[in-house]
This record gives sequence, structure tokens and C-alpha cells, in this order.
Amino acid sequence: MTSAIPPGEFEIIARYFSRASRRSDVLLGIGDDAALLQVPSDRRLVAAMDTLVEGVHFPVGTGARSIGHRALAVNLSDLAAMGAEPAWALLSLSLPESNAEWLAEFSKGLHDLAQRYNVALVGGDTVRGPLVITVQVLGFIEAGPALTRGGARPGDLIYVSGIPGEAAAGLAVIQGQTVEGEDSELLRHRFNWPEPRVQLGQTLRTLASAAMDVSDGLLGDLGKLCQASACSAQLELERLPASPSMRALFDVAASERFALLGGDDYELLFTVAAGRVPEFEALVQNTEPGCTRIGRITQRDPGQAVVQCLRDGRAVVVPATGYDHFSKA
Amino acid sequence: MTSAIPPGEFEIIARYFSRASRRSDVLLGIGDDAALLQVPSDRRLVAAMDTLVEGVHFPVGTGARSIGHRALAVNLSDLAAMGAEPAWALLSLSLPESNAEWLAEFSKGLHDLAQRYNVALVGGDTVRGPLVITVQVLGFIEAGPALTRGGARPGDLIYVSGIPGEAAAGLAVIQGQTVEGEDSELLRHRFNWPEPRVQLGQTLRTLASAAMDVSDGLLGDLGKLCQASACSAQLELERLPASPSMRALFDVAASERFALLGGDDYELLFTVAAGRVPEFEALVQNTEPGCTRIGRITQRDPGQAVVQCLRDGRAVVVPATGYDHFSKA
Repeated sequence: MTSAIPPGEFEIIARYFSRASRRSDVLLGIGDDAALLQVPSDRRLVAAMDTLVEGVHFPVGTGARSIGHRALAVNLSDLAAMGAEPAWALLSLSLPESNAEWLAEFSKGLHDLAQRYNVALVGGDTVRGPLVITVQVLGFIEAGPALTRGGARPGDLIYVSGIPGEAAAGLAVIQGQTVEGEDSELLRHRFNWPEPRVQLGQTLRTLASAAMDVSDGLLGDLGKLCQASACSAQLELERLPASPSMRALFDVAASERFALLGGDDYELLFTVAAGRVPEFEALVQNTEPGCTRIGRITQRDPGQAVVQCLRDGRAVVVPATGYDHFSKA
Repeated sequence: MTSAIPPGEFEIIARYFSRASRRSDVLLGIGDDAALLQVPSDRRLVAAMDTLVEGVHFPVGTGARSIGHRALAVNLSDLAAMGAEPAWALLSLSLPESNAEWLAEFSKGLHDLAQRYNVALVGGDTVRGPLVITVQVLGFIEAGPALTRGGARPGDLIYVSGIPGEAAAGLAVIQGQTVEGEDSELLRHRFNWPEPRVQLGQTLRTLASAAMDVSDGLLGDLGKLCQASACSAQLELERLPASPSMRALFDVAASERFALLGGDDYELLFTVAAGRVPEFEALVQNTEPGCTRIGRITQRDPGQAVVQCLRDGRAVVVPATGYDHFSKA
């Protein structure tokens, strides 16, 4: 088969996705019916799977390299939320046509990120269909209490990493809602190249009381953390980390909406017991991304909203929905 | 949210896919950022992932219960080919709309099969998009030499389980190419309800020299096994197991084409060293599915086709391609 002919299914797998791995725990990688892997005997396995659909999770016309990066990044973000160490990934790629240039770029985006986190691509599937990408990631954590969404307790402080809302503002930029410039470039980058907070998650594993990644919007995701923890939360709006780029291009109200309701940030949202705050703040001081305290966990009060937003100490009402693929918009 | 309103993303996961598992090795299942699983310390992990696209892997209009069954079955078939014991699955479901009846049927098909093999659904994703289903399965095997595609040696005998071709004939039935009746019903069933050969695979693990599942057609898949084993093969066409139902509805030539080129059988194709044949035949005698010897592994001869088809001892030429999603048809 010459390179002028679009590559076939098996050719695609061999040419773009089979790469020698440095991981000695991959006993059998791409090419057989299944991968064969060695989990360290003192570790537990952590497994997550996320899907991206063209036109739903990224705009039609998004660069293939960015899509490859994103497909792995959103999954590594789930491992980060558990404090896990990433190890292996499987890729399912449904593609309308076999386009060599697209595949080269897509696999580069995926492999570059995989290499940074020492993740080996060990298997998957390539089929003809609409552009839909599913990645499944596997990683490890030590035995012991797990870091979940369900461990927050009244009195715990709520933190978020990075600057929530910038990715959603970046999507608005991509959709042509602003003028172009340095600020729009930064926001666009935040949407196209989400950075999974893997190291931060590992730091938090034995330090935070609860954690999750922000993929459907801060407000909705904080509600889920509260539901899992059977608590409520007070979110102090004036504490939300400011984004100079967002504020340069959008007004205060739009910026706050991006921060509270925008998806795609893949930052970590977590809680720390009051007694462990000094230890936590010493550890994350001067590290990237910065973490900002944005509120406090409270007792569940059935008469109150699960997440109460405060502005300068007074309760305010903001639309309380995150992204739900099947909700009536 | 009342039941009259189509369920949302989180509702879908909770209502249709979160079920209590009997497996004590699921430390954290559906509902957090990732699942937390305990792999037995003396086992290796086996991982596979397969995708089904509507209109590509099953006809538009296929019953949702059959789709749910198929999505898991094709993955369990990959584990079967390695001789692995299935344990856990993750599901990614891209759905055009949230339809309660469809979801109930789909999840029933998937859960019924999962229950039979003691597989726990531990995570995944539900998104809006074209109908594309990806399942990822995890299982175990003991340490020691693995059963792969690459272990066949000249002189080994080639076997296949079940009756290859019946699933492809079933698809032809579904596409309206025959009259309806008892035979068409059986073939249709073979397409809609593929049975992963999990027990057979486990029996073969230390007995066969090489194995794979037949998903893209016997001839093409045997070619892949030979490539992985650096061998060639002689396939004796008159040994192919006969299908009375196929022969009742299709002529000899069509039946042979289904058997050699038809995908979707999910039978096991495997090789056994001549010295182990008595032990193998004693073990699989009187078990379901039956296994049929269909040929022999030979030395690779660069001047010859990788798979040589023989009819009554004479070489014959048959079109030598299995299913490739991106090949020019």
C-alpha cells in the first residue's frame, strides 16, 4: 500500500498508534485481541472513560492535534481527581474517512501528552463512522482511603485550581464573539489545550477531604460534590479567581457566568478540612496551577439550595445548572 | 424530574446503568470521577475496547436489547481469545436523544450478558451525539505464557469454534435477501446475539498455541494470526463446518463466501500443536460450541499466499480480504 492511498484500518493502527513504550508493565500492547498489563501488587487500579463528539465537545473545524490532546487530557483529568498515577490508555476512534494528515496530527496531540505523563497506548479500535473519540485510561493509587467526591464535611474549605471560566470564554472567542488579540489567544489556548492537574491531584490524595474535576461547570459540579458528601456549600463569588484576559474581552456578568457555568476547564475542585489548611497551603504555595479558596462546606439544610452563592456575605441567586447533555436547554 | 420528561445525563447513568454489583473487588463503581478496582496480586490485567457504530456494525433499526448485548459480547470475545476471566466493563454511550424505552432495552441487553459472566459495569460516559457505543472490558489471567495470535508453529492444527458464516448469513437475512422461516430465524439470531466463547477461551489458554476471535472474517483473520506467528496456513475448504440453515437459504458458493469472508461470528480461531491434539480433543469433546479442525500451519514461503485454500488437496483461489473499515470496497 503506497502512501498516496488512504491507509486502511490495520495500517492506521500500525502507523499512527503503535509506538514502543518505555513501560515495562505492558506485557502485550497494541496488535493482539487485548492488552496484557501488570498492575503492581500493592496498588489499586483506577479506571475512567470519556467520549468526545465533534460539534458537541469541540467545534467542527477544531485542529486534529488539539482533539488528540483533549481526548486524553479529559481522561487524565478524571484520574487526577482521584489522585491517581496514570499508566495506560486505550483509544476508540470513529472516523468518517481515513485522512493521513488528520491522523498524523491527531496522534501527535495524543502521544505528546501521553509521553509527558508516561502513559502507554495499549489498545483500542478504529472504525468508520461519525467523528467520535473515546479514550479509556487506567492508573494506580496506593491502598488506603480513596479521594472521592463524597468526603467533604461541614467546616471544610472549598478550593479550585487555576481560573475557572477561561475555557468557556475561549470557546466564545472561537465562536467569534470577540475581537482577536493577545487575550483572545490565551483564552482560545485554554479551551484547546486543557491541562490535566495530575501532580496536584497526587498531592491532594491524602490531604483533601473530597475532590472532582470541573468539566460541566463549577456551580453544577460543586452541587454534585455536595450531593455525594451529603452536605451543602457556600460559594463566595468575590473570591472567584480573576482572569485579566476574560475581563479584557467580556463584561463582569459574562465573566462570572463563564466562571460558574462554563464547562471544559478540567481544573480540580476540592475541599480541605480546616485543621489541614496550613499544611495544604504550605504545600501548594508557589506551585502551578495556583489554588484559590472559594467557599466553605456547610450542614445540609433541606430548605436551602445545595449550593448557596454569597456576594459580600449576602445570598444571591444565580442560574444553578451545569452542562447536561440531555437537559432541555 | 418526572418520568414523562426524557431523563438527563446524570439521571440516565443513575437509572439505567448504576446497579449494585456482587463483586467485592469493585471498591468504587459508577458515580465518581473514576472507578477504583482491586486486581488480585497473582493475576495479570487484560484490557480490550471495541466500538459499534449504527449503520456500520449493525443495521439501522436493530433492537436496542440486541445492541446492548452485542456491545458487551464483542468485547468479551476479545477477552475469550486471550483465555481471560472477565471482571469489569466501562460503557461510553453516544445517543441522539434520551429515549427511556430504548435505554431500558439497551441496558437490559447489556446487563443480562454481564450478569451471566459476572461482569460489573463500573463506569463510563453518556453523551449526546450519533449512535456510537464503546465498551471497554477488563479481566484477569494467571501469570505465565500468554495466549496470543503469535504462537502458532508449522505443523500445528487449525481449529475454529461454532459455524463461521452464520452471522454474515443472518445479516443477509435481515437485509431481506431471503424468505423468512425457521432457518432465517436461526441465522438472524446468530447475527443479533453473538455468544462470546469465554469458557472455551479459558480451556484453551494453556492448551492452544495461538488464538484470536473471528470478527472480520475467517480468511482475513487467519492471515493475521499467520502474520503474527510468522507462518503460513493451509485451509481445507471441505472441512469448514456445514450450516444446514445457511445451505437451506443460500447456494454453495454464497455459503462458502459467508464462511470465509463474513464478519461478526465472534467464534474462536486457534491452533493446537500436533502433540497436544489428543488432550485437546478429549477436553472439548461433547462441549458447546463444537470445534472443527479446518487446516494446518505451514512454514512461511515468501512466494506463496499467507493463507492457501485447498479443495480436496488442490490449491484454489478465493478473494483474500476480510473486513477493513477503511479499505476501498
